[in-house]
Amino acid sequence: MFTPMMNSELTITALMRHAERVNGLVEVVSVTADNPRHRYTYRDAFKRVRKLANALSKLGLKQGDTIGTFAWNDYRHLEIYYAVSCSGMVCHTVNPRLFPEQLEYIVNHGKDKWIFVDATMVPLLESLQDKLPDIQGYIVMTDEAHMPDTRLNNALCYETLLAPESEAFDWPELNENTPSALCYTSGTTGNPKGVMYTHRSTLLHCFGSIAADVFALSIKDVALPIVPMFHVNGWGLVYSAPMVGSKLVMPGPKMADGETLCALINEEKITVSAGVPTVWLALMNYLDEHKKSIPTLNRLTVGGAACPFVVYDGLRNRYGVDVQMGWGMTEMNPLGTFNGNCPPALESLSEEEYDHLRLKAGRPVFGVDIKITDADGNDQPWDGVSSGAIKVRGPWIINDYFNYDGETLDDNGWFETGDVGCMDQWGYLQITDRLKDVIKSGGEWISSIELENCAMNHPDVAEAAVVGMPHPKWTERPLLLAVLKDGKTLDKQTLLAWLEDKVAKWWIPEDCLFVDELPHTATGKVSKKDIRAQLKDYQWPE
Amino acid sequence: MFTPMMNSELTITALMRHAERVNGLVEVVSVTADNPRHRYTYRDAFKRVRKLANALSKLGLKQGDTIGTFAWNDYRHLEIYYAVSCSGMVCHTVNPRLFPEQLEYIVNHGKDKWIFVDATMVPLLESLQDKLPDIQGYIVMTDEAHMPDTRLNNALCYETLLAPESEAFDWPELNENTPSALCYTSGTTGNPKGVMYTHRSTLLHCFGSIAADVFALSIKDVALPIVPMFHVNGWGLVYSAPMVGSKLVMPGPKMADGETLCALINEEKITVSAGVPTVWLALMNYLDEHKKSIPTLNRLTVGGAACPFVVYDGLRNRYGVDVQMGWGMTEMNPLGTFNGNCPPALESLSEEEYDHLRLKAGRPVFGVDIKITDADGNDQPWDGVSSGAIKVRGPWIINDYFNYDGETLDDNGWFETGDVGCMDQWGYLQITDRLKDVIKSGGEWISSIELENCAMNHPDVAEAAVVGMPHPKWTERPLLLAVLKDGKTLDKQTLLAWLEDKVAKWWIPEDCLFVDELPHTATGKVSKKDIRAQLKDYQWPE
Repeated sequence: MFTPMMNSELTITALMRHAERVNGLVEVVSVTADNPRHRYTYRDAFKRVRKLANALSKLGLKQGDTIGTFAWNDYRHLEIYYAVSCSGMVCHTVNPRLFPEQLEYIVNHGKDKWIFVDATMVPLLESLQDKLPDIQGYIVMTDEAHMPDTRLNNALCYETLLAPESEAFDWPELNENTPSALCYTSGTTGNPKGVMYTHRSTLLHCFGSIAADVFALSIKDVALPIVPMFHVNGWGLVYSAPMVGSKLVMPGPKMADGETLCALINEEKITVSAGVPTVWLALMNYLDEHKKSIPTLNRLTVGGAACPFVVYDGLRNRYGVDVQMGWGMTEMNPLGTFNGNCPPALESLSEEEYDHLRLKAGRPVFGVDIKITDADGNDQPWDGVSSGAIKVRGPWIINDYFNYDGETLDDNGWFETGDVGCMDQWGYLQITDRLKDVIKSGGEWISSIELENCAMNHPDVAEAAVVGMPHPKWTERPLLLAVLKDGKTLDKQTLLAWLEDKVAKWWIPEDCLFVDELPHTATGKVSKKDIRAQLKDYQWPE
Repeated sequence: MFTPMMNSELTITALMRHAERVNGLVEVVSVTADNPRHRYTYRDAFKRVRKLANALSKLGLKQGDTIGTFAWNDYRHLEIYYAVSCSGMVCHTVNPRLFPEQLEYIVNHGKDKWIFVDATMVPLLESLQDKLPDIQGYIVMTDEAHMPDTRLNNALCYETLLAPESEAFDWPELNENTPSALCYTSGTTGNPKGVMYTHRSTLLHCFGSIAADVFALSIKDVALPIVPMFHVNGWGLVYSAPMVGSKLVMPGPKMADGETLCALINEEKITVSAGVPTVWLALMNYLDEHKKSIPTLNRLTVGGAACPFVVYDGLRNRYGVDVQMGWGMTEMNPLGTFNGNCPPALESLSEEEYDHLRLKAGRPVFGVDIKITDADGNDQPWDGVSSGAIKVRGPWIINDYFNYDGETLDDNGWFETGDVGCMDQWGYLQITDRLKDVIKSGGEWISSIELENCAMNHPDVAEAAVVGMPHPKWTERPLLLAVLKDGKTLDKQTLLAWLEDKVAKWWIPEDCLFVDELPHTATGKVSKKDIRAQLKDYQWPE
């Protein structure tokens, strides 16, 4: 058969070889439990990756085996990523913040054989290990001097394990569709579901994410991935930074600590970072309070949740950082849309229109096909207003959850994201709600998120949530719950009146309750499931 | 079987759909033989692509068929690219500047069924058509009003062909390894050889080329591909610009005309361009002579031949354009290395060292694996001095020439590029010669290109060539041929002395001949084959 172009497989192994040869002199800097500032180069890293691959092989682990990690963002976790995936095994990153029952389910369902564990999480695994019967042993990510006294079964020390191994390893030739990593969604309903990435999906996601209109990741950059490596592979930065040769700085367990982040940014000359809004709020508050600046940081990506205007505006206008939204999810490897550079045709927008645009989820990254459908599954126009369920497909979108009985895709082969939004004619996606949180009022949809954002812009409101409550005439109507800032008072009428010129009249909540706090999930999001449970006896006022 | 991530094929059709939906409002501007400034949007373009696909189908053309093009860079050529490739046919772009015998060979060897021809090239094809027995007809790329009176067999008018067709077309679902385009190398020896690109190689090449350290192509950009679409698919810009939403400006037949280029750059606000050195020299000379500036153009890529220092330095320092080298070839789709952003570790270079670095071919684009081997095939170290044959592999590197009896790859599966060079520790490739032109002197290699560049930097030298001539003691020794600038005189000793502090002593040519002109190939390169033929009776001086 005539094969005109080479059948080169898109593997993480190819990425690693490229990084070592071409970007081998670039530094990797980490904060770890046993070292406040560990530094070495990619060349050093990949030497140790080969030592680790030899060690895994001696433990009897084979292609197709799954290895768990309970770890922060640091160089040892990076080494584990490459050694495991390039050995043809699956690197299963576990979010240690989940509830014990979820952790037990995830490790057992993933069929993990060994677990790498950060020294700080040894107590967590000690409390779990009796429920993890198939784990053959634990490798504590530290050196002999810092090895904790532990009752973990078959506990090995990472550095002791690596020490005697050879720096040479003969990597297997892998097909690009070989599974490389496993990550569970922390769904708010039912058991967590496993998403299995492949070498191909990871590589194509890297290609998509480094583009000039997305992360624009460069050999010039110093990248600080604050998003944990247990959240969708750290949004791919631990692959894309070595791929292009960005210096990589990893904050270890210090992920939401404004002081550590500010010091890392200034001392390591960080140019680009990525994380959830709460991290940026913590950083901004620290900068404000201590009158610090972060001049090298020129852009950052906000993902995982909607970005409050104050964070976007404050970091942009007071600290000179372009705040760029990204949207995606575990099932999307994770990147779907990105709000980086704007079309020149939009340069004439007013400041207000421009800010509104930049707070949207962004434009589809090439590789991700998006459609918006109404309740009947019909395509909605890209007119900037017609909202509906957001569906996606593409080479880094899930096809099948791991070991799952249900249907992952819809009848036409699209993945339904569970998000609701609208698209404009330039392909800007605006997320308006989660499908399960959208309020169905008189046949129309009301966005709970938009109402929450408006309410949270009131200077006295600390946090707000809007849920749809059953209504005899309109099916559902919105109910606003607000937590006030310390020492502030506000009445219901004033807060509802605040919304009047900001949303359609029929969107105004029927009622408002002031509460001391809102329930949150393990990942820090407001739990509307718990709110609805707490409100099961609620009655609308007359 | 468990398929964790979607099996989405990497096809030009997927790229086209993305471009139409997400970047559909962006403009495409062309200079054509019948219109000095045609403009429409990508959305308009892809509507016409579907009309053309219907027309091709009505002509009885089927998946796998090859269609030739004799055309410049303009919107109709763009439409043909997409309509042909996305129909599962092969778009065979022919370089009209080749010799008639080569054109005849290429069209027949490629098994072209129909030919699209620019109105300006109708006379060329009239003179060839008797030698092209399998061509069923010719489609002249113009409208009825501009249709030339032609004796081409079965000549159709492009616009008349499209007019009645539907704007709807049901694109076939293609496997990503389907051939998409065919391009022949204009080799200096033997018959031209055909390189067949696939949808996959094209898409992956796009991903590689848009990266921030390569073309950094963005929705913000206005791209002017001056490299012809018959040279390795215009270095992929006709795919990558729609992919990211760059406005595309195409100069038609006016490719090396400084006045047209200057006007296009300023009127269309071009930000990025790409072409061979002669184009940039023409532009720079025009700007110098007419005291013009090109403030919107912030970078350009030079490829196809080494960039003279005067072009790099003049455009950079007098006109504010970053001049970025690229290296590749037809067999590489074409991109192999690119000299864009520099590692921060190199920021401390002196101005001279920096210029030297920026004139190198650049660093490997992720996806292209490079090695340098000595005469025995052993890997050379990446130390910046050890030179050898440059070999490549990767997903957009050729595997097999089309319908070719010889071996395309070496025994280990690498493609030998025919170039000679060295790599430094940062992965910067420096091309020092063509393997067949390198001078083997006393067991060592002397770079003919480096000697030529040194000689051409002499203010009185217009063009220079160095060839290795047989030598009784040293196997070969370099002989310099120089063409002087009008009105200049120079003697042999002075010119050879000029080289003395610039290259190793044993590199200094044994002799120098002043000639009125040098022979060139059809693509404008100096023909060393012809020089050697002219010099067959040459004797070294005593």
